[in-house]
Amino acid sequence: MKILVDAYGGDNAPLEIIKGAVQYVQEGGTAEVCLVGLESEIRKIMDENGYSYKNIEIKNATEVVTCHESPTEAIRKKPDSSLCVGFAALRSGEYDAMLSAGSTGAVLTGAVLKVGRIKGVNRPALCSLLPTVKEGKEVIYLDCGANADTKPINMVQFALMADIYAKKVKGIKEPKIALLSNGAEDEKGNELILKVHPVLRNLEGINFVGNIEGRDILSGDYDIVVTEGFAGNAALKAIEGTAKAVLTIMKDNIKKSFLSIIGAMFMKKTFKNMKKTLDYNTRGGAIFLGANGVMVKAHGSSKAQTIVAGIKLCEEACKANIKEEIAERLAKDDVKSLIFD
Amino acid sequence: MKILVDAYGGDNAPLEIIKGAVQYVQEGGTAEVCLVGLESEIRKIMDENGYSYKNIEIKNATEVVTCHESPTEAIRKKPDSSLCVGFAALRSGEYDAMLSAGSTGAVLTGAVLKVGRIKGVNRPALCSLLPTVKEGKEVIYLDCGANADTKPINMVQFALMADIYAKKVKGIKEPKIALLSNGAEDEKGNELILKVHPVLRNLEGINFVGNIEGRDILSGDYDIVVTEGFAGNAALKAIEGTAKAVLTIMKDNIKKSFLSIIGAMFMKKTFKNMKKTLDYNTRGGAIFLGANGVMVKAHGSSKAQTIVAGIKLCEEACKANIKEEIAERLAKDDVKSLIFD
Repeated sequence: MKILVDAYGGDNAPLEIIKGAVQYVQEGGTAEVCLVGLESEIRKIMDENGYSYKNIEIKNATEVVTCHESPTEAIRKKPDSSLCVGFAALRSGEYDAMLSAGSTGAVLTGAVLKVGRIKGVNRPALCSLLPTVKEGKEVIYLDCGANADTKPINMVQFALMADIYAKKVKGIKEPKIALLSNGAEDEKGNELILKVHPVLRNLEGINFVGNIEGRDILSGDYDIVVTEGFAGNAALKAIEGTAKAVLTIMKDNIKKSFLSIIGAMFMKKTFKNMKKTLDYNTRGGAIFLGANGVMVKAHGSSKAQTIVAGIKLCEEACKANIKEEIAERLAKDDVKSLIFD
Repeated sequence: MKILVDAYGGDNAPLEIIKGAVQYVQEGGTAEVCLVGLESEIRKIMDENGYSYKNIEIKNATEVVTCHESPTEAIRKKPDSSLCVGFAALRSGEYDAMLSAGSTGAVLTGAVLKVGRIKGVNRPALCSLLPTVKEGKEVIYLDCGANADTKPINMVQFALMADIYAKKVKGIKEPKIALLSNGAEDEKGNELILKVHPVLRNLEGINFVGNIEGRDILSGDYDIVVTEGFAGNAALKAIEGTAKAVLTIMKDNIKKSFLSIIGAMFMKKTFKNMKKTLDYNTRGGAIFLGANGVMVKAHGSSKAQTIVAGIKLCEEACKANIKEEIAERLAKDDVKSLIFD
């Protein structure tokens, strides 16, 4: 398996990205990693740090896309950017997946423009795997925000794509699919949700369990949570922010009493485990589901450890080739015949 | 000050509601409380528990609105419900505020139909006071979900109403107003946010600081966070759910090691404080801002303690009469002349 890694995407590029790629190999990762970016500089960093080139390929790209430029323009005007060179390589079919911690907008726009979409997919979705209160149980959450204005057909496709991903990649038998709404009752929702809900109810072959509220996302009772992109983004980031906030509030409270400072010492390991469970960096990033190739977007703040996780996520996503299956499913009449007024 | 309390709203009505009202008085609350509901039953409970009638009035209402009936129908078909009798009393002007833990839909619909809106307000909003990571600092968050399909003009009005509330009731000099979006940059957002943002930028007399992401809601850096109702509801409930989830994950982790069980014992008080900070029950509920009278909706699961907090929230909201001010502000040209395509 060959995985492309955008060495020049993210706040800590290129050093942490290169470090992560090397670390992945050192930790026994079996995929070959291709670092995309300024070859001379990458080699310099590799050599200065005495990194091994084992299973590490380098693909030269002389330009860099920053977070500060318009995604569409950047993709058009920088054909030799690490991002565009990576996309071209992914499209060529020579590589199996691509990881980038670069500007979300540029990664998503570029993926659609340069790699394309799976046949029948109107809009791909950013798909995250979130931890839940049930240990070891993750929930597939999409759309994390690839689409600001989501249409009913998009959400129906999100559900079907995630269902195939859960079955083929995650090996879940009958994935429980829930729809994020403003109430659990079937009649709850905004105009969009009220259109999507009945369609999901009647779709062939999926296990749609109905509406849930934001507070149920991490319950571990669902395998897939389908959301409208804007609200999905708000809720996901609220989850991240609250997890951080609770830990901060705890720290502040601990400092207030000598006893609890002692207690906290006893609990060091526990806190560490907990942080790990909640730390989104250990998850590598979000899969761009619906793109015509395995694409993973890592956090812009990614460090080496996140890159390792991101490469592993690419590896996992490649386990099953779900492109054909998604195209076939979306081509069926029950989806193709859908008309939303 | 006279505050109406719907004795027959919520999962724990009437006992916990009555208990809460009495507790409020016992704890030195100065407002007179009027319990609305089946008088005979209320008196029976008061007497059986030996509760004092000091500052407690009872207004008879023979019907009850449940969560299972359509809000509009319930309000129309049950004129003698505790909710409708309460609304009528509030409208009469004889009372200063009303608290209900009843069906959100019925409370909001009823408030609009029976109490009406402040002049110029298109849609009232549910407004919560959330804790932040900065101790003692709350953030005014609206709309919590009174509106599933929010229009640009609604959000502009939410911002102005919250601004007046923050200034007059909370005594905040120049409230920092943020807009919940899918990115912090001005150009981020869905169609709705992209219409609202520039208007807030140019509004007279408010301190609009721009877009924020879901992860910033609890940062304590903002006094007011304005959201679209559906996403606002999803994010708010995600916050509640995550706070719970983190505590659960912590408990599970503590159980795993003997050391941390010991540690946790030392930290009992800390955990208690923390839970209190995060506990939404201590906050009483959400203010229905824009209704033509002070209305607070308490959690359906409210127990006595929440009712006490809810009555105090009513009391606080009555401190300043902001109705006229809101009406005046919305009547100004910069708002009245707004046209959104």
